[in-house]
Amino acid sequence: MTVNRVQVVENILNANDQVAQLNRQVLDQAGAFSINLMASPGAGKTSFILKTIQALRPEVNIGVVEGDTAPVTIDADKINAVGMPAVQINTGGECHLDAVMLKAGLQQLPLLEIDLLIVENVGNLICPAAFDLGTHINLLVASIPEGDDKPYKYPNIYRGLDVLVINKTDLLPYIDFRMEYFRQGVEMLNPGLTTFAVSCKTGEGIDAWADWLRGRLAAAKQV
Amino acid sequence: MTVNRVQVVENILNANDQVAQLNRQVLDQAGAFSINLMASPGAGKTSFILKTIQALRPEVNIGVVEGDTAPVTIDADKINAVGMPAVQINTGGECHLDAVMLKAGLQQLPLLEIDLLIVENVGNLICPAAFDLGTHINLLVASIPEGDDKPYKYPNIYRGLDVLVINKTDLLPYIDFRMEYFRQGVEMLNPGLTTFAVSCKTGEGIDAWADWLRGRLAAAKQV
Repeated sequence: MTVNRVQVVENILNANDQVAQLNRQVLDQAGAFSINLMASPGAGKTSFILKTIQALRPEVNIGVVEGDTAPVTIDADKINAVGMPAVQINTGGECHLDAVMLKAGLQQLPLLEIDLLIVENVGNLICPAAFDLGTHINLLVASIPEGDDKPYKYPNIYRGLDVLVINKTDLLPYIDFRMEYFRQGVEMLNPGLTTFAVSCKTGEGIDAWADWLRGRLAAAKQV
Repeated sequence: MTVNRVQVVENILNANDQVAQLNRQVLDQAGAFSINLMASPGAGKTSFILKTIQALRPEVNIGVVEGDTAPVTIDADKINAVGMPAVQINTGGECHLDAVMLKAGLQQLPLLEIDLLIVENVGNLICPAAFDLGTHINLLVASIPEGDDKPYKYPNIYRGLDVLVINKTDLLPYIDFRMEYFRQGVEMLNPGLTTFAVSCKTGEGIDAWADWLRGRLAAAKQV
């Protein structure tokens, strides 16, 4: 009986990962490189996506999946307004996207026409970190007003990152943010993590991020 | 069999609320008025608690429970540094406090000496809204840099509030924040909600909040 119970738990844990694997296959076959974009509420996820679209168009076609906990299309509308396909997933109060939700989103997008798929996860520094969606990389948008102690307080999400973006650098003059303390916390959890400091308001740092992303997209095409 | 299953689910749902009721009884008997303080990561929960302590001392004894997802005592240390009792609850990666965790915290505090207990929940706008802790009021610290669309995107937490604090008003000159749009969203979800706009950096608005809280504490003593 005990063995049986353990097996049941394993099956539950693996269900999400199995669908995530399928999502990755679908994305690979379509030639769409994909980013799981996570952040705290209000860190500037949608602004960052808009700046990325602006920097990479017209050579890169970008699709967006917007995860929201409520049936509001504020973010999806912003993406559509700049002419890119966006599909909204309303989690119905759930605190994260999972692979099954993303699978449903993928079915609504013209994946063959998309070079880069950005999945905007629900605004939350805890729960999204625990669910593989089947995307290729995990990216966190941190922001200066959140404070310099976040890596120490939310270590799990930082451990799983491939890229870190520090947004709202334009607010540095007005906020007590110790960049060195923040970076030390990140380095402890995720040594050598690729990091970009940007301001989606002024555009500072976006070019460096866009160059790096172009490189990743080119490498993905060659595989 | 079907009926039995429904009963099991009901028992699970009620377990948290039953412990929450017990917590409320314990707090009432000790004469400690209590606040469940929720917010997004980095909205300024701990700074707001420190400002509240500063405004009400020495006439009000304040105890603090710090909910964290990791075993870091950054916030609890700040409370202890100003001479108030604080106990930390490490949720072990969980995304919210629940009534059982608070019960464990209450057992470590000198409740009879405490007039006001502030429970700093985990930084998260979604999950904490679903769990009654047994505190007397729910308070959210929103902050200007999070953006003016948060009531629309995270409606559940706004619906359950007794008090709303809008922090970091000192950053208003540097951020596109439409206060009217924000307040309309709040009004739609929670008409007539008691709201204070404050800056924990400059101290603006803290007096009005402290006056209101003194009134609530006095009223609670008379019951």
